[in-house]
Amino acid sequence: MIEMSDPFEHTREMFHMPQGVIYLNGNSLGPLPQRAPAAMTRVARDEWGEMLITGWNKAGWMAQPVAVGDRLGRLIGAEPGHVVLGETLSIKVYQALAAALELRPERRVILSDTGNFPSDVYMAEGLIRSLDRGHELRVVAPEDVESAITDEVAVVMLTDVDYRSARRHNMWAITAKAHAAGALTIWDLAHSAGAVDVHLASAKADFAVGCTYKYLNGGPGAPAFIYVAPRHIAEVSPALSGWLGHADPFAFDPSYRAGTGIERMRVGTPPILALAALEAALDIWEDVDMQALYSASTRLSQAFIKGIEAACPDLTLASPREPELRGSHVSFEFEHGYGAMQACIAEGVIGDFRAPDIMRFGITPLYLNDDDIARAVEIIARVINEGLWDRPEYKTRAKVT
Amino acid sequence: MIEMSDPFEHTREMFHMPQGVIYLNGNSLGPLPQRAPAAMTRVARDEWGEMLITGWNKAGWMAQPVAVGDRLGRLIGAEPGHVVLGETLSIKVYQALAAALELRPERRVILSDTGNFPSDVYMAEGLIRSLDRGHELRVVAPEDVESAITDEVAVVMLTDVDYRSARRHNMWAITAKAHAAGALTIWDLAHSAGAVDVHLASAKADFAVGCTYKYLNGGPGAPAFIYVAPRHIAEVSPALSGWLGHADPFAFDPSYRAGTGIERMRVGTPPILALAALEAALDIWEDVDMQALYSASTRLSQAFIKGIEAACPDLTLASPREPELRGSHVSFEFEHGYGAMQACIAEGVIGDFRAPDIMRFGITPLYLNDDDIARAVEIIARVINEGLWDRPEYKTRAKVT
Repeated sequence: MIEMSDPFEHTREMFHMPQGVIYLNGNSLGPLPQRAPAAMTRVARDEWGEMLITGWNKAGWMAQPVAVGDRLGRLIGAEPGHVVLGETLSIKVYQALAAALELRPERRVILSDTGNFPSDVYMAEGLIRSLDRGHELRVVAPEDVESAITDEVAVVMLTDVDYRSARRHNMWAITAKAHAAGALTIWDLAHSAGAVDVHLASAKADFAVGCTYKYLNGGPGAPAFIYVAPRHIAEVSPALSGWLGHADPFAFDPSYRAGTGIERMRVGTPPILALAALEAALDIWEDVDMQALYSASTRLSQAFIKGIEAACPDLTLASPREPELRGSHVSFEFEHGYGAMQACIAEGVIGDFRAPDIMRFGITPLYLNDDDIARAVEIIARVINEGLWDRPEYKTRAKVT
Repeated sequence: MIEMSDPFEHTREMFHMPQGVIYLNGNSLGPLPQRAPAAMTRVARDEWGEMLITGWNKAGWMAQPVAVGDRLGRLIGAEPGHVVLGETLSIKVYQALAAALELRPERRVILSDTGNFPSDVYMAEGLIRSLDRGHELRVVAPEDVESAITDEVAVVMLTDVDYRSARRHNMWAITAKAHAAGALTIWDLAHSAGAVDVHLASAKADFAVGCTYKYLNGGPGAPAFIYVAPRHIAEVSPALSGWLGHADPFAFDPSYRAGTGIERMRVGTPPILALAALEAALDIWEDVDMQALYSASTRLSQAFIKGIEAACPDLTLASPREPELRGSHVSFEFEHGYGAMQACIAEGVIGDFRAPDIMRFGITPLYLNDDDIARAVEIIARVINEGLWDRPEYKTRAKVT
């Protein structure tokens, strides 16, 4: 193996990392960008504090959801002006799905897979119940998605990268198949944006949604985003027809008129303080080439898999072995995974656990390098092979809430 | 008039106010609580930065939406455990309305009034279109609401305090009338929470929603809240059935099961950084008695009205004269209101303008005292009577976005 120089040394320094921690959970919550607190303080003091209400214009708050959307859009291969920030991912799923179903009024099937994130499925269930027009949520195995795309299908709604296994769909092939059958696609990029090279426009995706608190490092509960393909946006009638999606919010019209372009997918007042933190996070991405990031992720992930498999025969790879079929996290099955992950965390390697037996490790080149991966493998191997997972303090499951 | 000692001297010091500004727009965006930047920085550095993903449990992030809801609930007379924070006000309107309609499946009329905030009406339009079951949005004049409550009405959806005139509804009377007719009520408290004494439980309100960036001073785009009466919550099937409203989010169930109590009205991941700012704002409310605040608001508002009417004969009061029929802002009609408000802002009195001719002034005792009101009257009188509104630089309407 040829040792490459780390193209992400400079971004690594832009994050705060607690002493002694190797953070393999950026797929769940990205770490603090060093500049985020100052960015929030600046917006709070200089904008909110000094400009007060006039900040909506003077500081450009009102335009931020689309402006930040464009910064993010570059990372997912979206056309400029077609991504907007706001609310939460579940809400964006609802908006995309309601719009897609309305664009295919004669069809009744929402096709998803067992790898979709549960909340997406829950939101679909709620929408189907509200619509009460006989829509069916058809959930198949991930490998059966393509063959399940028939002319009954209104929309194929998938999470691109599986939150457990990291199995990645082929966005190009599925979208092409969907279009050939007259169906639309919604891609949840929660585990893709900032993780892998996504090319929404090239893949001809119809809708995409995602969150910004994972690989994008926007902070806990950072706002979500939605993408609508340029060819559809003029036809989309927003189901969540909120004030800021109106063509002229400050006309205070008695009736809704959808705004131009992606603006119509806005709903309520944008979260300016949260957007300040997200902007600080996006600053770090400014010079990042997604192809280079993806290469680094692949190199680190392959090293991690190789290391764990060599050192921990009791762990079984639960992610695809082929990098091109995988997102940017790696999962292993281990019968005592819960206790093992608790022990890993106590030893300074933070990953997470997903029932029943998945140990999940996020591989994020922006702030992880080859040394971190090597050290993490050592520590995980010690936890597994010395049976630290069997200690009583690691075996009791804490209630999450 | 007996001069009272100001019971809010201590809260006044807890806000940052720009030099030379009298801020009469807290009904639109509250000013910066002095401690908000430090609170956000603390959460960012000590919690997000140091705890990383473990903050969801260790720092209590996951429980925050209801914990903060309880702090806020006290200010609006809600039962503990029945208010939850999240997303935006438009989303909360949608949730409440969808729930109310589902509780009255045999009825088809949503009764609202011309004083409702447009976004609430837009969200209703969107829901009606999605449901496609012949619901009718019946909009009457505010004074005709009571007489329009018939047994066709599923839900009476009103903004308690009119965003233009500050006209306040009688929540007790309308709710009683609605209940007598078998209808439910949704109260939008955007201009009420933190402004007037609201008693949701006593008034037997069914649903209430609101934002936290106005009188509550949570910051631009601060999260919204929803209240569901204890007697209804177990019957509510959330239309926006998101992950965090699930009975056990971390079971990753394939199907939605509504959480217990108000938790089921949660949708997506809570905005932790924004909640930190809101918590700092709510600290200020900790010792505030809402009745005392309402008295102070009344005293200041009456002085403001008296002062303006005496000094500016060209301005016509556009708010109810009786304090008990009014929220905590005061509006005047003035033909040249747009230019006049621009001139007021340039002179240091920040209010706002609502088309066609409303000059709107928020009266917020937490950080305004009798001297501020007297000075504001003087400046406004000068703007009006010396014709400052006629200057070219104040007459061109800037585009808002």
